[in-house]
Amino acid sequence: MSKHLNIGMVGYGFMARAHSNAWANVAHFFDTGYRPVLKAAAARNESKLRRFADQWGYESVESDWRALIDRKDIDAIDICVPNDLHAEIAIAAAKAGKMVLTEKPLARTAAEGQPMVDAVEKAGVPNMVWYNYRRVPAVMLIKHMVDEGRLGKIFHYRAKFLQDWTISPDVPQGGAATWRLDVEAAGSGVTGDLLAHCLDTATWINGGITSLTAMTETFIKERTHAETGQKQPVGIDDAAAVLTRFANGSLGTFESTRYARGHKAGYTLEINGEKGSLSWDLHDLNRVQYFDHGVSGAQRGWTNILVTDGDHPYLGKWWVPGLIIGYEHSFTHQAADFLDGLKHHTPTSPTFREALETNKLCDAILASGKSGSWVNL
Amino acid sequence: MSKHLNIGMVGYGFMARAHSNAWANVAHFFDTGYRPVLKAAAARNESKLRRFADQWGYESVESDWRALIDRKDIDAIDICVPNDLHAEIAIAAAKAGKMVLTEKPLARTAAEGQPMVDAVEKAGVPNMVWYNYRRVPAVMLIKHMVDEGRLGKIFHYRAKFLQDWTISPDVPQGGAATWRLDVEAAGSGVTGDLLAHCLDTATWINGGITSLTAMTETFIKERTHAETGQKQPVGIDDAAAVLTRFANGSLGTFESTRYARGHKAGYTLEINGEKGSLSWDLHDLNRVQYFDHGVSGAQRGWTNILVTDGDHPYLGKWWVPGLIIGYEHSFTHQAADFLDGLKHHTPTSPTFREALETNKLCDAILASGKSGSWVNL
Amino acid sequence: MSKHLNIGMVGYGFMARAHSNAWANVAHFFDTGYRPVLKAAAARNESKLRRFADQWGYESVESDWRALIDRKDIDAIDICVPNDLHAEIAIAAAKAGKMVLTEKPLARTAAEGQPMVDAVEKAGVPNMVWYNYRRVPAVMLIKHMVDEGRLGKIFHYRAKFLQDWTISPDVPQGGAATWRLDVEAAGSGVTGDLLAHCLDTATWINGGITSLTAMTETFIKERTHAETGQKQPVGIDDAAAVLTRFANGSLGTFESTRYARGHKAGYTLEINGEKGSLSWDLHDLNRVQYFDHGVSGAQRGWTNILVTDGDHPYLGKWWVPGLIIGYEHSFTHQAADFLDGLKHHTPTSPTFREALETNKLCDAILASGKSGSWVNL
Amino acid sequence: MSKHLNIGMVGYGFMARAHSNAWANVAHFFDTGYRPVLKAAAARNESKLRRFADQWGYESVESDWRALIDRKDIDAIDICVPNDLHAEIAIAAAKAGKMVLTEKPLARTAAEGQPMVDAVEKAGVPNMVWYNYRRVPAVMLIKHMVDEGRLGKIFHYRAKFLQDWTISPDVPQGGAATWRLDVEAAGSGVTGDLLAHCLDTATWINGGITSLTAMTETFIKERTHAETGQKQPVGIDDAAAVLTRFANGSLGTFESTRYARGHKAGYTLEINGEKGSLSWDLHDLNRVQYFDHGVSGAQRGWTNILVTDGDHPYLGKWWVPGLIIGYEHSFTHQAADFLDGLKHHTPTSPTFREALETNKLCDAILASGKSGSWVNL
Repeated sequence: MSKHLNIGMVGYGFMARAHSNAWANVAHFFDTGYRPVLKAAAARNESKLRRFADQWGYESVESDWRALIDRKDIDAIDICVPNDLHAEIAIAAAKAGKMVLTEKPLARTAAEGQPMVDAVEKAGVPNMVWYNYRRVPAVMLIKHMVDEGRLGKIFHYRAKFLQDWTISPDVPQGGAATWRLDVEAAGSGVTGDLLAHCLDTATWINGGITSLTAMTETFIKERTHAETGQKQPVGIDDAAAVLTRFANGSLGTFESTRYARGHKAGYTLEINGEKGSLSWDLHDLNRVQYFDHGVSGAQRGWTNILVTDGDHPYLGKWWVPGLIIGYEHSFTHQAADFLDGLKHHTPTSPTFREALETNKLCDAILASGKSGSWVNL
Repeated sequence: MSKHLNIGMVGYGFMARAHSNAWANVAHFFDTGYRPVLKAAAARNESKLRRFADQWGYESVESDWRALIDRKDIDAIDICVPNDLHAEIAIAAAKAGKMVLTEKPLARTAAEGQPMVDAVEKAGVPNMVWYNYRRVPAVMLIKHMVDEGRLGKIFHYRAKFLQDWTISPDVPQGGAATWRLDVEAAGSGVTGDLLAHCLDTATWINGGITSLTAMTETFIKERTHAETGQKQPVGIDDAAAVLTRFANGSLGTFESTRYARGHKAGYTLEINGEKGSLSWDLHDLNRVQYFDHGVSGAQRGWTNILVTDGDHPYLGKWWVPGLIIGYEHSFTHQAADFLDGLKHHTPTSPTFREALETNKLCDAILASGKSGSWVNL
Repeated sequence: MSKHLNIGMVGYGFMARAHSNAWANVAHFFDTGYRPVLKAAAARNESKLRRFADQWGYESVESDWRALIDRKDIDAIDICVPNDLHAEIAIAAAKAGKMVLTEKPLARTAAEGQPMVDAVEKAGVPNMVWYNYRRVPAVMLIKHMVDEGRLGKIFHYRAKFLQDWTISPDVPQGGAATWRLDVEAAGSGVTGDLLAHCLDTATWINGGITSLTAMTETFIKERTHAETGQKQPVGIDDAAAVLTRFANGSLGTFESTRYARGHKAGYTLEINGEKGSLSWDLHDLNRVQYFDHGVSGAQRGWTNILVTDGDHPYLGKWWVPGLIIGYEHSFTHQAADFLDGLKHHTPTSPTFREALETNKLCDAILASGKSGSWVNL
Repeated sequence: MSKHLNIGMVGYGFMARAHSNAWANVAHFFDTGYRPVLKAAAARNESKLRRFADQWGYESVESDWRALIDRKDIDAIDICVPNDLHAEIAIAAAKAGKMVLTEKPLARTAAEGQPMVDAVEKAGVPNMVWYNYRRVPAVMLIKHMVDEGRLGKIFHYRAKFLQDWTISPDVPQGGAATWRLDVEAAGSGVTGDLLAHCLDTATWINGGITSLTAMTETFIKERTHAETGQKQPVGIDDAAAVLTRFANGSLGTFESTRYARGHKAGYTLEINGEKGSLSWDLHDLNRVQYFDHGVSGAQRGWTNILVTDGDHPYLGKWWVPGLIIGYEHSFTHQAADFLDGLKHHTPTSPTFREALETNKLCDAILASGKSGSWVNL
């Protein structure tokens, strides 16, 4: 029989939906020994919260996350609110002995994230940050192939995350829908939002970054606040580009922007090694492009691997070859791995400690963007 | 408050999983006024049935579909068993006043399907056949664009459904996993399995087919039966290619096979009209390719529409632009449309009557494949 | 030292330019022992002919092809005029002991082509038909891979040649620019113009076709003649689709049309065999798509071979890896092979005799399009 | 009647072939009023020179470029030898009153290039550097579209040029085939060879670069000299990545390497503006990808423009829609533009003076790669 795992969700927005879907369907596809229960959701906006809870079948609601944490029947707190609230909630949840999961990034800065790491480690509670793209099957396949040595010595790592939704100066900042443009709520712009994903994947696959230099830019200097209607200076970075050196001797280039017309969720990555190359694109997330230098001359090329077969990561649990899966499945996979970690009493990556490293990289990028100098890590 | 709709599932295989997922998650994303309940599942193999019911959270099980139909607390019977069982179950369910849904094709032949149509119409019960690919958002967008007249007069319709999973002579026929190779259970090979999808979409988008000629082939003439272990002649068609004329004056070409290496679920379609063309590929199901002849010369080309925006069919209910969805979402959409139909007391397409037309086309293809002659419809 | 080969060109249009380019540059890239000389060009329209001859550096002109054939200093007659003139010119040239090359198709019908075959064989002169797409390096690579057995037993061959230039009813027929729409000049529409290419490649790669059935259509029934300005019935086929059986047991599907919006020179082909598949697209003519079933599971996929390496057919003579070549290079390659054949006293494929087979297939398609019956070959 | 333009070629290698092809075929396709004549070629290696001259039909040869420059019958000197020889030859040719053309880059450094600019300007002779990729029709179309304002305000420019031919430590440096790895002959590695192309195109399309920072790397520190067989330190950059700011406020990222497996001539570029985006890939050089934000929602996407129509740059001179051209055509187009410039007494871009700016950017990249600091230009 499966054990129940009672989820306490904080938030009701886009990420709360993606996480709720994962908790709701993980046991339909993965046998982990756990059956998550959507026990309670907490938020201040009661009408929106009730609508969310009704739609997803949460059994109850709380108007304050503190009340959620106080409940005995909650096993895990899942934080899906703006970045400035991660630390306080996570630390309180850890102190209350709850498992703690938070949407990425861990915190607005490494300084803010460090006490979160301390809290979960002191409490000894399972903890995880939802850098979900690691669990896209194609990305996991890339990780496996690199670990197997299929690329040999690595020379280059290249990632971009391009969007285009803030080009209009009429987009406001702050508020529920556009807090990502508010430096107070978000901590930074594309660096913490988009580059953080790229950096998490990169260091997971290619190891640590030892130094970097960055260029950052805020194209639109003033925006109206969504709630006050007042013009304010924009504090976030609209675009960031980074050159890095990895500990393994390879070179990295990273770029992120919300000003690249035609790119919606344009996360792409590529790795070039002595024996081959691999690349991936979030818009076609079921595919890996693989160049195998070992193939004899006339047949050599980039192989478009459709990652839908039973022997591909996670795919044996879904449909049949050729039938693709989507974005939200990455969360279901991460939930499955987390439950599997509980079963085996092992941490599930990325833990708070691991995710803190990404915050350090983000801090370094923002600092270099201002100073124009290389930063050693 | 949402009304409950109690589902009685017949079967526990691949399709039962796809349908169950749709019933389980449709209310998380679509506001139809109904909340499906996985009430009971029926099948003969008790251990497999229990495992399935446990995984999906069915409240109870029945070892005989007749018992399921007899239950008062079941609103709708959903048939996910081999084709040879569709008719008997559907007719019994209709007589019992249940709503009836069946996985496609409606039946093995039109002759077998006609009494099913009669039964649901006599009983006046909502009924639907799961030709799910209509509800892929990209396919629905194509339907809308053709209906809006964006292609003008149509000249050509072209569809293929290519697979490669039966090339080995060691694949058996019959039994739970390979009943699709058993002509008794399936009625036909690729014609009823794959071409039926192509024909359903084609006639929905491009109108009726008035005549056709076909070539069919069985590459492997004998296979071992999965249960008896005995060599038997193969009765199904392994491949079929069809030339058609549509009522609107356009020409159609259709092809289907399980002997096309490298194609897993290779359903592709293309429509060419006076003003433009549209195409789609199931392997990249979130994309439509559109050639708009009205665009001025130097910028003219095929536009790759990433169907993930809020104004694309069904997409406003899922994530944000750029984040793709997968195969199973087509079933969720069809479930949502069915529930919406219930709410508005309108039939949801394709009904049994509509799906019967596809059976007639399949019959004509198999007949022409034998006779070598054109068949008028 | 290279031997001179004096070319006598008949015509000055599109094909005369493509052939002249091949004769002009073949010796810059290929060492065949021959150096073609653009000796003389013949046509009736003197001003256009002079302009053509001047641009290409033809040493002299003749206003009648008969005068060209009479010249002692001409080694080879290259026929680049409408199809209805091929036979008379080719037979006269052969009788005069000239090498004879003609643009495809050999003739309007097999009946018209047979005496051409007889004439060149009786005269014992080198002869060739310019089915140039065989010499696209990617197509030649496919031929080599099939011949090496990389696909194993073949199940399917599929080809289309789609265009969109005659959709407007305002396009005239007849005359210098639109003789391809005039059944008298062309012999047929898409069948002789486009399908002929597909059939030539198919039978070269996959062997003989033993039977076929076809659907043909003329969408626009009347057009104005380009020269007389008078309305006339249209005698050509605007579209044709064909089902075939090959001698090796595989099935073929072919389609050709000038009513497929967005397709300019949309010649595509695909072959599916037991061990793998291959495909090609004229719009990206430097690429082969290859699915190798022998690759281990997780890395299996379609490999996009960029055919620009030194070990790819013909490519060692051009630039460096990654630098693509274009359409006209296929003619240069065919010229190189013809010169190489002269050097080694071997025929260069397709000879008149070989090309006659394609005319027979075209005849069968047009007949089946009328009768609706299968035709055995 | 066309005027003759007598070409004196210096060199016989890869670039001498590409340029000779352009001179040999430009008048077959473009009406410029000039007919280039392959008058003489000069090089020290007599046997290779004779073979080259024979293959291309050069009328005579010279064993010393000085003799070529002394000849009265030579109109233009075309320099196709390693970079360290450009300056001396170009200056001497200018002093002799010859038109001077040189393969890119202008020189090894801006300091070396400045006197070349001075010399041609003092002599008042037509001069040009063969940055050929500007004349790829798709790239020219991008230039036109940006100039027309179709992208609006530009935010991002992104270019890469990736290759993989020097990954093996067994590749030697120096000598005729591998002088590009010898810092003495080449001046730099990927910066002058590959990034120079990217920078030329970028500044031509997007305007001047005002500051940059760079990372450079030499992966293999020692190589054997091709002629002496002795181990030597490697002086070139194997890879370079650059962040730039343009005068128009946009951000640039550039990367170049010879260590990216699977990339042969992987020059790609992309521009993102307020109203749209454009991208291009040398491997598919006949295509432009265009995202037009002005298209209404549901049909919006990236349009794949096949640049083969008569209204596309240069294409009216070649074949018919759908038939692609190749790499070497870019040289033919540049030759056509140069001849057209002669006819109209206007300079043809990029002149020596314009190309000098690219050398300055290359110098800044190499300096920043060493210092780690931003460099203002």
